[in-house]
Amino acid sequence: MMPINLKRLPVLFFFFLSIALPQARGQEVGKSLAEKLGYARDAKLIVVHADDVGVTHSVNAATIKALDTGLVNSASIMVPCPWFPEIADYATAHPELDFGLHLTLTSERVYYRWGPVAAKNTVPSLVDANGYFFHDWSAETRPSTHPAVRIDPQDAERELRAQIDRALAMGIRPTHLDSHQYRLIINGKELFEVFLRLGHSYKLPIFVNRDWFAANPYLEGALGRDDIVLDHTVTMEPTVRAEKWAEFYTAALKNFQPGVTEFVIHVGFDDDELKAATRERDTWGAAWRQRDFDFFTSAEFRALLKEQNIKLVTWRQLANTAGR
Amino acid sequence: MMPINLKRLPVLFFFFLSIALPQARGQEVGKSLAEKLGYARDAKLIVVHADDVGVTHSVNAATIKALDTGLVNSASIMVPCPWFPEIADYATAHPELDFGLHLTLTSERVYYRWGPVAAKNTVPSLVDANGYFFHDWSAETRPSTHPAVRIDPQDAERELRAQIDRALAMGIRPTHLDSHQYRLIINGKELFEVFLRLGHSYKLPIFVNRDWFAANPYLEGALGRDDIVLDHTVTMEPTVRAEKWAEFYTAALKNFQPGVTEFVIHVGFDDDELKAATRERDTWGAAWRQRDFDFFTSAEFRALLKEQNIKLVTWRQLANTAGR
Repeated sequence: MMPINLKRLPVLFFFFLSIALPQARGQEVGKSLAEKLGYARDAKLIVVHADDVGVTHSVNAATIKALDTGLVNSASIMVPCPWFPEIADYATAHPELDFGLHLTLTSERVYYRWGPVAAKNTVPSLVDANGYFFHDWSAETRPSTHPAVRIDPQDAERELRAQIDRALAMGIRPTHLDSHQYRLIINGKELFEVFLRLGHSYKLPIFVNRDWFAANPYLEGALGRDDIVLDHTVTMEPTVRAEKWAEFYTAALKNFQPGVTEFVIHVGFDDDELKAATRERDTWGAAWRQRDFDFFTSAEFRALLKEQNIKLVTWRQLANTAGR
Repeated sequence: MMPINLKRLPVLFFFFLSIALPQARGQEVGKSLAEKLGYARDAKLIVVHADDVGVTHSVNAATIKALDTGLVNSASIMVPCPWFPEIADYATAHPELDFGLHLTLTSERVYYRWGPVAAKNTVPSLVDANGYFFHDWSAETRPSTHPAVRIDPQDAERELRAQIDRALAMGIRPTHLDSHQYRLIINGKELFEVFLRLGHSYKLPIFVNRDWFAANPYLEGALGRDDIVLDHTVTMEPTVRAEKWAEFYTAALKNFQPGVTEFVIHVGFDDDELKAATRERDTWGAAWRQRDFDFFTSAEFRALLKEQNIKLVTWRQLANTAGR
């Protein structure tokens, strides 16, 4: 140990505090997310993440079964949906599981719909004439079916705070926030800043991915040094034929890049409820979700993870890297 | 024809208008509902009415199939429920069917819930802390889980107008109104007057039954001469064991009283969705609804109607008796 002049210690302490902390933080910038998680820089890490929990009973039941296998290890919940109470009850009873909130501003199906958690007169730009969230709105933050309406970021923030507050009130302790249909990612800086502000306000990491920076340049500029950024995303493409499902995922696992990759998957059972709820189009439909369930709970997937030396990490672990 | 003094005609006209119309109406009081429908006074008439359409996909699918048989000939729809858009689409495409609105002020299940159609801050006495309708409230119009809250009849009227308006906006042309869990019937004069006012305002008959007058004395006093009142109701009792289902209904059909009887039934399929939605109690649960579906679509039921000379009538026919 170096000798220390005790008389000068307080001065030295504040001197170091003022200049050393930013330097120390500066050194951390070089650490990869994998390293912050305690893995080697070139470790291959995966979050196998089931989206849209709460949307139907079928999706809830399939997610619970998938999480039971341990192969699907994270999921996020849609608070405005009718089956939210079922999954809120389950998540509260299983606090060890890695549940985030899937912040929702659309009701994209035709025969089965939901609206805002906030009083609809407080979020007028989010709701259609019948009081549901819009089916869709475009990248210009205008609902495509109602081109005169602009999604107001203040309405979005008000609604999403109501969603998080209902989840907390009903016992959920979310590990992260993500955005249903990436609406808060791909629709401009203002909505992304809402997302980021919610993350900071509730002290929860938000799902952002380095791969998205090129197409959405405002992302990188808005993020701070302490915000967690995942390295890659893999998600099924609508162009992949049903019989090529396992092949698509297998190729992704065999070409897995170092760093943290989130597999964004959509599990559900191909049953009457989910068939009816999604019948107007096949994309993310009942058969699609059954195929995701089948692959990600399979012995084949388990063997591929082992063979490729890919390790599972959760959003709870990711959240714990904040500030490291 | 009697000779008429033409000079005095206007005076006579107004004289007759002022005294003859009430007298003419007075004569109609003696006509039974069966007679107004064009049947003999002692005719045995039945509305086979499926409640709770819109609540789940399973109930929608079973109701559509039951209506297809022609043996179930009327139904009513819960507008605040998530599967309302599916049945709204179906009802709009089948305007010949007899769909009413099942006015709803409760969200009585545990794992699957809904809230008001009106902005929740405009109907504060109807919603719980999480923004759903209360599970339950008592005959003293206080939610049993929130004893300090009183259901405000003005909130009820505001919400129920929003439900009817959404149904109309989405293309439904309802033939009648009824009240989910009889909440507007059994909870005092003020809420019944809301029900009655809605019926008058939208020119729709409301489901009221002479059998209920003794227990709810305010009903008869509030009803006007032109309001339609059914004679009897038959509905399954929670005390009836599953194996006695057909026996219960068969006895009711064999002891059928003259006049108009509504069989209030609850059809659905005993599938994963409905099992999950109703799992906390058996009453009106998935197996219950499957039994109702099975009985009321059976050849046995068809044969009993024929054997007992019981004729099916719809709410559309009942509505047409108004003022007769």
